[in-house]
Amino acid sequence: MDKPEQTADSEFRYEAVVKFIDDLIDSGALAPGQKVPSLRKVSKARGVSVSTALHAYRMLESKGVLEAQPQSGFYVSANSVVQMGKPSVMSRSTPVRKVSSGALVANMFELAGDTDLAPLGCAIPSPDLLAASQLDKFLARMTRTRGKHANTYAPPRGVDSLRAAIARRSINWGHAVSADDIVITCGCTEALHLALKAIAQPGDTIAVESPNYFGFLPILQALHLKVTEIPTDSIDGISVPALEVALEKTPVKACLFSSAFNNPLGCLTSEEKKNQVLSLLNRHRIPLIEDDVYGDIFFGKERPRPYSAMEKAKNVIYCSSFSKTVAPGYRIGWIASSGYTDKLAAEKYATTLCGPTLTQVALGEYLNAGAYDNHLRGLRKSFAANMAAVSNTIADTFPAGTRISRPEGGFVLWVELPDDINARAVFDLAIREGICFAPGDLFTTSNNYRSCLRISCGYPWNTQIERAIWKLAELVVVQRNAQT
Amino acid sequence: MDKPEQTADSEFRYEAVVKFIDDLIDSGALAPGQKVPSLRKVSKARGVSVSTALHAYRMLESKGVLEAQPQSGFYVSANSVVQMGKPSVMSRSTPVRKVSSGALVANMFELAGDTDLAPLGCAIPSPDLLAASQLDKFLARMTRTRGKHANTYAPPRGVDSLRAAIARRSINWGHAVSADDIVITCGCTEALHLALKAIAQPGDTIAVESPNYFGFLPILQALHLKVTEIPTDSIDGISVPALEVALEKTPVKACLFSSAFNNPLGCLTSEEKKNQVLSLLNRHRIPLIEDDVYGDIFFGKERPRPYSAMEKAKNVIYCSSFSKTVAPGYRIGWIASSGYTDKLAAEKYATTLCGPTLTQVALGEYLNAGAYDNHLRGLRKSFAANMAAVSNTIADTFPAGTRISRPEGGFVLWVELPDDINARAVFDLAIREGICFAPGDLFTTSNNYRSCLRISCGYPWNTQIERAIWKLAELVVVQRNAQT
Repeated sequence: MDKPEQTADSEFRYEAVVKFIDDLIDSGALAPGQKVPSLRKVSKARGVSVSTALHAYRMLESKGVLEAQPQSGFYVSANSVVQMGKPSVMSRSTPVRKVSSGALVANMFELAGDTDLAPLGCAIPSPDLLAASQLDKFLARMTRTRGKHANTYAPPRGVDSLRAAIARRSINWGHAVSADDIVITCGCTEALHLALKAIAQPGDTIAVESPNYFGFLPILQALHLKVTEIPTDSIDGISVPALEVALEKTPVKACLFSSAFNNPLGCLTSEEKKNQVLSLLNRHRIPLIEDDVYGDIFFGKERPRPYSAMEKAKNVIYCSSFSKTVAPGYRIGWIASSGYTDKLAAEKYATTLCGPTLTQVALGEYLNAGAYDNHLRGLRKSFAANMAAVSNTIADTFPAGTRISRPEGGFVLWVELPDDINARAVFDLAIREGICFAPGDLFTTSNNYRSCLRISCGYPWNTQIERAIWKLAELVVVQRNAQT
Repeated sequence: MDKPEQTADSEFRYEAVVKFIDDLIDSGALAPGQKVPSLRKVSKARGVSVSTALHAYRMLESKGVLEAQPQSGFYVSANSVVQMGKPSVMSRSTPVRKVSSGALVANMFELAGDTDLAPLGCAIPSPDLLAASQLDKFLARMTRTRGKHANTYAPPRGVDSLRAAIARRSINWGHAVSADDIVITCGCTEALHLALKAIAQPGDTIAVESPNYFGFLPILQALHLKVTEIPTDSIDGISVPALEVALEKTPVKACLFSSAFNNPLGCLTSEEKKNQVLSLLNRHRIPLIEDDVYGDIFFGKERPRPYSAMEKAKNVIYCSSFSKTVAPGYRIGWIASSGYTDKLAAEKYATTLCGPTLTQVALGEYLNAGAYDNHLRGLRKSFAANMAAVSNTIADTFPAGTRISRPEGGFVLWVELPDDINARAVFDLAIREGICFAPGDLFTTSNNYRSCLRISCGYPWNTQIERAIWKLAELVVVQRNAQT
């Protein structure tokens, strides 16, 4: 159900105030510790009621952006930049291993759908932050106007109009892809699956970042591929020297790296470094499969350009989806590559034949209508605010020595506990308390990250989440005491 | 757009007359050559206008069910049972081969979407015969009432309500499956892909019927599987003696057979024979993957029961979809198995993670609303009529010695040309004339079926299709003359 007009309006006005203050802080016009304009002033300046302004300030307070001081007013939170160490990095690449993802990953996928748990587990955006109602309106319209026509198999490569819409958007990521070079997939999972199948044979070795998204492991296992993990820093991404050594000593068939905001680290690799990686891969004639599902969720000024848009890009298969930004429920991802399209289309019809037709048509119309960019702007603000609030609360509540990532995009945090506290043991305690997170051991084939955890910040900050983090901090201490 | 009320009404009345006459013929009350009730009589008996009755009789005439005799009236067509030889059967199983499906199959999938071609090629039902508007209404309603809630990842096994609805329907095929044992897939293609992955390793050999659906071959190839083809008759299905010999001499890892109306043969295997096959497989401890996409499209009195519902069923994975009966555009299939569910769910999240949520929810609601069975009844009649009209026209126009299948379900015909006429060469001529069909060489890894073709009867009989078959008959003769 749509909300009544008036509420929608006042919601819009309150968000405008939030954005106004956020922008002042972003631009440096308001520094940490500084007093923000009074409610009276801001209500006059933005043409809103004082109660709307107060609502906006209370929201900024709950996100940890502002702090209220009694009888004085609101101040920019000094905490708004978290002062904690960054998580540690593996010292060297892991040996080549067969992948066996097994029950732990399966359990994680099962827990993803459990709405009774505090939503810090799987990297799923809150339906409240997504544009379901807008997109669904296009879908409902398509059922009326195009339903019969669309009730037939789509081409294996996907519906032409959606491929064209994606090709037009590719300008945003600095790499003009032709619609002919795009294959639509069932989310990024199928995109990665098909890309790996198109390049590698059973027994081949794939290099991935470490830690890497635990969903990669079942794909590699299903395709009978081996893996070597390359040390990756939570700030600036993969270690080029470690990659260089790994490629010298290991016959790597392909690399599978994140384009931006690696899940779980949230790291941002510079363009200079991306070109270094590509030069290295070109020298060894190794193709790169890149996963850019988080690329549109950047907190900085500009969208990070993927590997495929770099000067040195030669043999790159680009994979992405709309699951993290608008419609996890639609399961629409895509691959863009110039040299592999026919091969990928053949792998597509051998795996799922083709994707659903009507949802592709609807998404294409939605993208063409231009609503997506506006939605993305709001979404980035929300995720940044959620992440700041979660970070600040972890900083306030977790034991000293806890390290935490400082992502410039995406919506997950990587936390390293001090004193070798076993995160899997904390997880077992947390699930019993109705709290889900992703323990670090999921994100590797090695024995690393046993004291790490990934926290999803895909849901708007609220008291349930706040209490869950407080509780988590308690359980971390309980586990530390149990270990000593 | 829905049609105006009045038209829909009169369309319904005319269809009732068609059904009335069809039923009289089906029951034997009207025999071939016999005169049918006069227009005046039938209009009185059915409470319709004479022009509606005439419309119904003309339609039955166009389908080859009735023949008009000037100044005399309408008669049951003597041709309505085609008198042609049945296609020949391979003499023995093929040796084990690697599968290489390649460009011909890819070309076929590309042509599937070409609406300029006469639709005798891919096995796609006409959107006019499907229940798109009914199902889409459920989808549109779901966008309004459940859109936000559904805009999240579904469980890898699929949406619970849809799995429950399918489990309830499984009673129709004589095998009460538990919802817990169902995994929803992206059409039957993904179902077969996951089932094969769950059972076989690269290099293993799979036994299939011969000829078999050409879409199997890319799946087997993608999974690095080998194949042996077992002789299969267009009337009563697989040869048990040939299967027995093949299993004695070949280490077959699994069998992949059709439950009913094998595409392209349309054969119907008796329950006795199904139990013989299962006993043989049980003795060799070989699992059976069965493909039942055509099971709901039976022309006889009862739905054929699949292998999984037989007494001897022990190790059977059941695969099906809604693509041939209601929604090829939705891409929803499923697997039902008792021993493999966890393994299949793991293969599912390694391949596509999960299916779209809202379309699953909508299909579940549609099935629960009870409209599907009514739709199926009409659809079976339509396909049977189309198939009869195509068969009769082929009988009238193709060279003497042409053999043709007489399926009791599904909507494809298998035609064997006389005199070693090369069907691939006819195909090349036909495509230039805007006519598509599936040449026989697609349906095997062997050199068989070079003078065979599959004709899809998924579209209602009309003059475009009639002309296409006449033209095809001409081209067959042109090719025969070119060969001699």
